[in-house]
Amino acid sequence: MKRKVCVVVASRANYGRIKYVMRAVQQHPDLELQLIVGASTLLERYGRSVDIIRREGFEPDRSIFYVVEGETPLTQAKSTGLGIVELSTAFQDLQPDMVVTVADRYETMSSAIAASYMNIPLVHVQGGEVSGNIDDRVRHAITKLADIHFPCTEQSRERLIRMGEDEHRVFNHGCPAMDVIANEDTSIDNEIMAGYGGVGTSIDWTRPYILMVQHPVTTSYGDGMNQVMETLHALCEFPGHQKVVLWPNSDAGSEDVAKGIRVFRERGEASGFHFYRNFSPEDYVRVLANAKACVGNSSSFIREGSFLGVPAVVVGDRQRNREHGGNVVFADYTQASVKDAIERQLAARAYEHDSLFGFGDAGRKIADTLATIDLNYQKSNSY
Amino acid sequence: MKRKVCVVVASRANYGRIKYVMRAVQQHPDLELQLIVGASTLLERYGRSVDIIRREGFEPDRSIFYVVEGETPLTQAKSTGLGIVELSTAFQDLQPDMVVTVADRYETMSSAIAASYMNIPLVHVQGGEVSGNIDDRVRHAITKLADIHFPCTEQSRERLIRMGEDEHRVFNHGCPAMDVIANEDTSIDNEIMAGYGGVGTSIDWTRPYILMVQHPVTTSYGDGMNQVMETLHALCEFPGHQKVVLWPNSDAGSEDVAKGIRVFRERGEASGFHFYRNFSPEDYVRVLANAKACVGNSSSFIREGSFLGVPAVVVGDRQRNREHGGNVVFADYTQASVKDAIERQLAARAYEHDSLFGFGDAGRKIADTLATIDLNYQKSNSY
Amino acid sequence: MKRKVCVVVASRANYGRIKYVMRAVQQHPDLELQLIVGASTLLERYGRSVDIIRREGFEPDRSIFYVVEGETPLTQAKSTGLGIVELSTAFQDLQPDMVVTVADRYETMSSAIAASYMNIPLVHVQGGEVSGNIDDRVRHAITKLADIHFPCTEQSRERLIRMGEDEHRVFNHGCPAMDVIANEDTSIDNEIMAGYGGVGTSIDWTRPYILMVQHPVTTSYGDGMNQVMETLHALCEFPGHQKVVLWPNSDAGSEDVAKGIRVFRERGEASGFHFYRNFSPEDYVRVLANAKACVGNSSSFIREGSFLGVPAVVVGDRQRNREHGGNVVFADYTQASVKDAIERQLAARAYEHDSLFGFGDAGRKIADTLATIDLNYQKSNSY
Amino acid sequence: MKRKVCVVVASRANYGRIKYVMRAVQQHPDLELQLIVGASTLLERYGRSVDIIRREGFEPDRSIFYVVEGETPLTQAKSTGLGIVELSTAFQDLQPDMVVTVADRYETMSSAIAASYMNIPLVHVQGGEVSGNIDDRVRHAITKLADIHFPCTEQSRERLIRMGEDEHRVFNHGCPAMDVIANEDTSIDNEIMAGYGGVGTSIDWTRPYILMVQHPVTTSYGDGMNQVMETLHALCEFPGHQKVVLWPNSDAGSEDVAKGIRVFRERGEASGFHFYRNFSPEDYVRVLANAKACVGNSSSFIREGSFLGVPAVVVGDRQRNREHGGNVVFADYTQASVKDAIERQLAARAYEHDSLFGFGDAGRKIADTLATIDLNYQKSNSY
Repeated sequence: MKRKVCVVVASRANYGRIKYVMRAVQQHPDLELQLIVGASTLLERYGRSVDIIRREGFEPDRSIFYVVEGETPLTQAKSTGLGIVELSTAFQDLQPDMVVTVADRYETMSSAIAASYMNIPLVHVQGGEVSGNIDDRVRHAITKLADIHFPCTEQSRERLIRMGEDEHRVFNHGCPAMDVIANEDTSIDNEIMAGYGGVGTSIDWTRPYILMVQHPVTTSYGDGMNQVMETLHALCEFPGHQKVVLWPNSDAGSEDVAKGIRVFRERGEASGFHFYRNFSPEDYVRVLANAKACVGNSSSFIREGSFLGVPAVVVGDRQRNREHGGNVVFADYTQASVKDAIERQLAARAYEHDSLFGFGDAGRKIADTLATIDLNYQKSNSY
Repeated sequence: MKRKVCVVVASRANYGRIKYVMRAVQQHPDLELQLIVGASTLLERYGRSVDIIRREGFEPDRSIFYVVEGETPLTQAKSTGLGIVELSTAFQDLQPDMVVTVADRYETMSSAIAASYMNIPLVHVQGGEVSGNIDDRVRHAITKLADIHFPCTEQSRERLIRMGEDEHRVFNHGCPAMDVIANEDTSIDNEIMAGYGGVGTSIDWTRPYILMVQHPVTTSYGDGMNQVMETLHALCEFPGHQKVVLWPNSDAGSEDVAKGIRVFRERGEASGFHFYRNFSPEDYVRVLANAKACVGNSSSFIREGSFLGVPAVVVGDRQRNREHGGNVVFADYTQASVKDAIERQLAARAYEHDSLFGFGDAGRKIADTLATIDLNYQKSNSY
Repeated sequence: MKRKVCVVVASRANYGRIKYVMRAVQQHPDLELQLIVGASTLLERYGRSVDIIRREGFEPDRSIFYVVEGETPLTQAKSTGLGIVELSTAFQDLQPDMVVTVADRYETMSSAIAASYMNIPLVHVQGGEVSGNIDDRVRHAITKLADIHFPCTEQSRERLIRMGEDEHRVFNHGCPAMDVIANEDTSIDNEIMAGYGGVGTSIDWTRPYILMVQHPVTTSYGDGMNQVMETLHALCEFPGHQKVVLWPNSDAGSEDVAKGIRVFRERGEASGFHFYRNFSPEDYVRVLANAKACVGNSSSFIREGSFLGVPAVVVGDRQRNREHGGNVVFADYTQASVKDAIERQLAARAYEHDSLFGFGDAGRKIADTLATIDLNYQKSNSY
Repeated sequence: MKRKVCVVVASRANYGRIKYVMRAVQQHPDLELQLIVGASTLLERYGRSVDIIRREGFEPDRSIFYVVEGETPLTQAKSTGLGIVELSTAFQDLQPDMVVTVADRYETMSSAIAASYMNIPLVHVQGGEVSGNIDDRVRHAITKLADIHFPCTEQSRERLIRMGEDEHRVFNHGCPAMDVIANEDTSIDNEIMAGYGGVGTSIDWTRPYILMVQHPVTTSYGDGMNQVMETLHALCEFPGHQKVVLWPNSDAGSEDVAKGIRVFRERGEASGFHFYRNFSPEDYVRVLANAKACVGNSSSFIREGSFLGVPAVVVGDRQRNREHGGNVVFADYTQASVKDAIERQLAARAYEHDSLFGFGDAGRKIADTLATIDLNYQKSNSY
């Protein structure tokens, strides 16, 4: 009998990271994919990534709305709670042999708690990393609940073992987000990108542009508006480059960051800027791969950026302690600091590819491990 | 301004462990106690420990019902989720400077997630222990969410640091459950115990008795009924001793264990047995302190038992890997194994006191630390 | 395409009332049955009626735990809320063409709100009755949310129309609970009843017995214990009859009533009494049909009792204003009043059958209506 | 002892309607106001009316986030459920003598269910009206749960009695929303309105303008975008008038309507239009009172509009069956129909004041009734 592998996709970012695992599970003779989509994947405001998921051949077994509106730390906690209430029922119905959860956000915690309390083996992808904010706590807490770990780098693998995880249950197969890059054409042109609406100055994708993605930082809730405006103003100092901006993720503080962007636009400063809601993971990689530089705090700059060798300016604390390749320069939350860093990176042009996050075949390797690993495992914790 | 210390008490066991911390916080000039009671503390079936809490001078700021009935792993997960939904609102209202959570059960996880997501410093008492079951995962996951740790033994302190916690935020002040023993008269007589109803043969507390407390073991849900009956039958082989039995905790599987006890009673085998719902923490200590032996899987046998030197027979896996003193003998889930162990322990009589869990002054020391520790702390996790 | 009829069964009583509708839907060529079981149907303490449901050939599409433990008005409200949260997801998944809900309790309200908010036509069975307690409010509120009504008596039908419901959407096909009686053998013997455990003096079902079923009355929460003890003591005055007692339903106050029964038993007064958790709807009808009298406040005394002609003593307010047949005598919550009424009823022996609740073919008639009624209906409410 | 009157304000519209009741309760010697704010009153996207509430002298006792994001009928049901879960805890804490709930939306249903299940007398303001959509069901269902009714018109009062409510518990004191008009200066100028941001062509409030407020209609979910665009295009045909547009309420479908407005703006058709998120109830009345005409489907056009005599064009079905004064003309969801109606109404200029909704002293009268009415009332329902 096939092992039922239940993947919970709860945000746009989740999907980009886990898509090639889903595909490999779907194609594996000994595995059966169960898919639950939830939280911001279902919401207009975050681009309804469920539509992309469906279009790419994955039919959800369950769709669960569990975002409590408010975008404060309070409602983030509530969403986690509501997610547990509903995901547990879905797990009960679907009776998976294991549950796969990705990364470190609150939607992820919901799956982790529901599955581990229900004695369903929990698989955690992208554990063991450190970025220096609250996500670290959540990521490490999920590690302690999980049975099988797929960290994305060697350093992460070692950290998980140091934290007490059984080394026979920790596998560094690289990062499945890299599979998107390795497997798909990353060239860009205006035709490909024509479908994405957005607002602002229209972009000619064949000409130089800088990509900006700046998420709220949950431990300093309330500063998001100023922080994003410093970055936006720094970008204004590069009139020779087009500016492609992605709206922030659903998160405590995202409304704050979004407000900064709105104010910037309403003041009429946004000449040369175009603002997008969402790209498919593939198209996002195209946008990143072809940028002259990328600015903000998206972990994709460190992750896909190092694989692709894109010059990245990482602003603020959010990724400060994260393991990174040579393509990254850090900057403070000030216009001047960001401007300097962009200048340096534009001068650097492109970097060499870096195998820090693997070879782009993580999905298949993870599926192989899931098909064969012993599931009758009693986690010891007695180190 | 006083620091507001919010303690969440969500079960009878929680209360016994944290009571002297609550008292010390209440009496500390720089601290203010906020009390939330919830989950099984409010339920008749588990003896409504909220009544004892009130009687002992603690008035709850909030009372929250969040047990989803069912007592399966599924409903345990749901209860955790519902707890988060409601506790987050309470934290928002009460605006504590820190939240204190105890031990390792699902009610504890609810507080831990709500507080840490809301950026309220999280204090965890009794972290770092290992017992060999799912509680370990939950306990360690809470560790990763927490900011300040009060493990109860040296070995636990070291484990927390090994797991990556900052050693300047980890304090071994001993176990606050010991404070109950150290501070209160532990002698017993019939008058003291007269108020407790229960059912079965009446107990003469001045004559020899064996105490039995056997909780369900959440990873082997479904076996509880057989397991408890083996222990009960073993106890039948000691007709010279009275048998004092406590009903199990609210937990996945507790209905199962309770059923075993009911069947045993209904078959008329319970001669010499008396079954109680609940004792106050003080009276529970009296009962334990004066038992000729204690049998089952309560962690109190290892904890208070070692402090008191009470001969303990620990049945099954639940506490197998837990650090313990010389007073403990382990047995399997069979009548024969339990019987043998009881015989050995009755022959041993009492053991020496053991300082494994401290000196009975943990409450005061913890309060002192909470009054002075730096709360503007950014957890690093970058070990 | 078949119309998908989603029935929500949320308690033992629900099932008895709707079973023949479910069967008729299952057998109808133009209808497809979808079944959701939830709340107390899944709980040990209430006899897990889901097991009976399965045994009788109905496989649930969804099983949803949504009872928040506490059995107070507070937790009853919470359960309703949690039920809505989860049922809405189930309705979204199952995409029924209509939702069928039964009677008047809080579990029913959850289905009614979820369905009507989601624009799914709502079918209400047993609306329009009055019993003089909070159930009336809930029942009438569900009426105002519902699109199609199947009241069980002529008087109820008229009341619904008086309340403003469209007379073309209100059908008196009789009460589907009567179908159980009309379709199944109601004779009783010891062999049939052997499987039911329970506790107390063993019952010889071929000899005279009195049936007692007393539910908590939600508007006078807190008095349940005294009320039930008065009835129990009255029954003690009939030593020549065996006493068959059913534990109360899940409801605010049921713990209170259950406690009264426990105290009564523990005082050793329960000689001649046997206490049961649950019967299948068929066996319950046997028990009722063959009782010399029935005592308490179950609506089955009025409903099935009138169909069968069983002498009934209805205690207290719960059913005081309910339309009833000639088989009913009312009594107060005092031992003396109940005793007198029992004496009168035992003297009366059996009553004539009464067609007040129809002819035992309601299930089939309801299914026929559901198969043909216009579902593109905009409720007017503009009377 | 003062009677504790707990008012639940769960949306911007709620507040405008109940504000003068709150004030009168606050000032009444025998009453004490308890205030719970929740749902969209706390959300940025709906203008955080909690800030206005605070500024006007009402300090909430509880703030509860319970909007599940999605704005579909599904999430509306979920929000209702989540609201019940949390409001019941708040009621338990606050122990009100009665709960006041307003009108007919899902947030209102949450309060109604929580209070009535908890046996707290439920007061319903604005019951008995009919508007021809799903709100009618909810409004009438709340009526059946409520103990004390304050309908706003004579016709509504009669309907409540016809539905079976006790005439001694049904009071037509007029509509408390009128109190805002009667008690406050309704003149408008640019200084007063300067604080409101919004986007679009700037408005000179001393020159002619048309007000547009168009909410989603929940029974025809999905058409909102087209409907709103027809109205917007009709307004374009009046270039001589400025256009003041209010964003829609939080409701299933509001995202749909909002999208229509966004598309309209992004196409550059919005010349002469200004779009606002929110006004205080007082300022909203100023805006309405001074409009040359108002267009859309806000119930305020019928209610305050008749009191003020403002020419109103009511578009679509939402208010079709509502009792209205002479100031109303109805139009279909087409540009042509709306345009014609606007033309007629601009020609009509202002209408006479109409006492259909009372005399602007409802708040005080309602408070007086609440201070004296018998609260030990057993609702009969036995009509």
